Amino acid sequence: MPQKAYARAGVDIDLANRLKSRLGAPLRATRRPEVLGAVGGFGGLFRASFPGLRDPVLVASIDGVGTKLKVAFMLDRHDTVGADLVNHCVNDILTLGAEPLFFLDYIGAGKLEPRVFGALIKGMSRACASAGCALLGGETAQMPGFYPPGEYDLAGCIVGIVDRKKIIDGSSVRPGDTLIGLPASGLHTNGYSLARRILFEDMGLRPRDRLPGLRLPIGLELLRTHPSYLPAVRRLVRRVPVKGMAHITGGGLVDNLPRVLPDGARAIIDTKSWRVPPLFRTLRDRGGLGDAEAYQVFNMGIGFVLIVDSRHAKRALAITGGRPIGTVERGPKGVALV
Amino acid sequence: MPQKAYARAGVDIDLANRLKSRLGAPLRATRRPEVLGAVGGFGGLFRASFPGLRDPVLVASIDGVGTKLKVAFMLDRHDTVGADLVNHCVNDILTLGAEPLFFLDYIGAGKLEPRVFGALIKGMSRACASAGCALLGGETAQMPGFYPPGEYDLAGCIVGIVDRKKIIDGSSVRPGDTLIGLPASGLHTNGYSLARRILFEDMGLRPRDRLPGLRLPIGLELLRTHPSYLPAVRRLVRRVPVKGMAHITGGGLVDNLPRVLPDGARAIIDTKSWRVPPLFRTLRDRGGLGDAEAYQVFNMGIGFVLIVDSRHAKRALAITGGRPIGTVERGPKGVALV
Repeated sequence: MPQKAYARAGVDIDLANRLKSRLGAPLRATRRPEVLGAVGGFGGLFRASFPGLRDPVLVASIDGVGTKLKVAFMLDRHDTVGADLVNHCVNDILTLGAEPLFFLDYIGAGKLEPRVFGALIKGMSRACASAGCALLGGETAQMPGFYPPGEYDLAGCIVGIVDRKKIIDGSSVRPGDTLIGLPASGLHTNGYSLARRILFEDMGLRPRDRLPGLRLPIGLELLRTHPSYLPAVRRLVRRVPVKGMAHITGGGLVDNLPRVLPDGARAIIDTKSWRVPPLFRTLRDRGGLGDAEAYQVFNMGIGFVLIVDSRHAKRALAITGGRPIGTVERGPKGVALV
Repeated sequence: MPQKAYARAGVDIDLANRLKSRLGAPLRATRRPEVLGAVGGFGGLFRASFPGLRDPVLVASIDGVGTKLKVAFMLDRHDTVGADLVNHCVNDILTLGAEPLFFLDYIGAGKLEPRVFGALIKGMSRACASAGCALLGGETAQMPGFYPPGEYDLAGCIVGIVDRKKIIDGSSVRPGDTLIGLPASGLHTNGYSLARRILFEDMGLRPRDRLPGLRLPIGLELLRTHPSYLPAVRRLVRRVPVKGMAHITGGGLVDNLPRVLPDGARAIIDTKSWRVPPLFRTLRDRGGLGDAEAYQVFNMGIGFVLIVDSRHAKRALAITGGRPIGTVERGPKGVALV
């Protein structure tokens, strides 16, 4: 089929079709029994059968990876951001106590490079399979002239399930409760615009440079994958009542914790109760950031927060490997950094 | 809260928060009884209760608007592409017989302009409300330096529901069946890279110029909203058995129809059976496109195709206002343009 005019305008329909058909093995590994049919029609099909749940509630969230993608472009490494996308989504719905069901991805690109596309899909597929989540569908938009060659944006939508009575929404959080922090692996997927400005512009570093205290060159440190907290939290909620959970993303501890605090409950974070990893200390110090800003832009080493009754704290810490980072006290809803 | 460093890097967290809280009225209009809680937490909640359905199956799809956005940027008109996004998604799952449940949007932008953001959300909200679909959540990613100022990309994910026994998948399509085309309002959301190349570069037109036969200036003709075929198809499936449906998007009639043809069934399209609208004729002629390419890149005036038994054709045409555009014959699975 002659493709001359459209291809000259930069869009290769046949290539897109060939890529989709090559997705095979990584995608199949994400399959679940509820998935009907094959990927490739107009919509993905997932049986809405939840026999173990009394009052099943679907939980949905959509997200991107942000300017972390610019680091992937700099390093020409596209095998980690797919997992970032999926894990960010998994963690978002996890905060409500939801288990993932399925995921869909959107890739907006200028010129579609098969190698890059393959790495992205593989990365997403692996993370979905780890989470027990079906990669149900996706869209790859060829938009020549919209994105510079080699660049792309990613968005992912996740749908999960939780029993209505088991939704964890922070409403039972009370003064005296313990805040438990689960460690971050790095910046995760927020704060990259500022981090890149500080490191690559202000400090004039290049991706292969090393900073004291960091195991990897700075580019690879920045690319460390956003982890999934699903395994740790699954283990926990089976054995300990969890009152609230927060995923520490855009807005840091400062903006994310209040989402699970009721009125009259204030989260007091003891900023000395964990060792802020060297990368964050460098960003804060070389960026001239006050604490108020640093803890709103970056996770500062804490990727996920659990709120439990203090009587359950010791058990929760043992099960999750987290650290106690503060307590809930009576006061205006919000976060205080001490 | 001092925002100096992050804001200097181009990201305004407080602005994003203020915008979200201002979404109020348009969003509330999309609410459905199954929606729990308010928009704003980590995930949107939707009760998975489908009492009328025997074996409910969730249908999910994700999509973008493509380079039609470039036309929106040229005209600084952002009040139509939100509906494009939603309707494209609604139509995609409609092909399987699914009714929409909820929708989530992703906006990736450089610098967030409140006016533009407001227009986008309003457009999406209205289209969701029309479709009876809850706008359950969204993500607005501020990515300075990633998108030129004033530009953005959109992705939307829709989840719908269909009873398993009522899934329409084309498996019962047979030689002798009638193809019914529902008219397109314009290019919808595909073929814009080529259309822009032909009109704005090859022909040197500007958005305010007019072409013979077109009611509006060329820019506004290109922005005509992708319609939702949900009302017409809803009316139809209640009264006539529909064997297959195709949404004519990327790949045109040529690539989309085969998705609902079984092996041994060939769609014979009589290209003279409807009047190809003037805009497509201009694009084909001035772009020097052969039919094979034109009908693969553009919808050529047909936005949605229904396949019914020929005995039901007359009734289906009366109910939907469509046109008969061809028949199914025995032959290799595919599409022939005659």
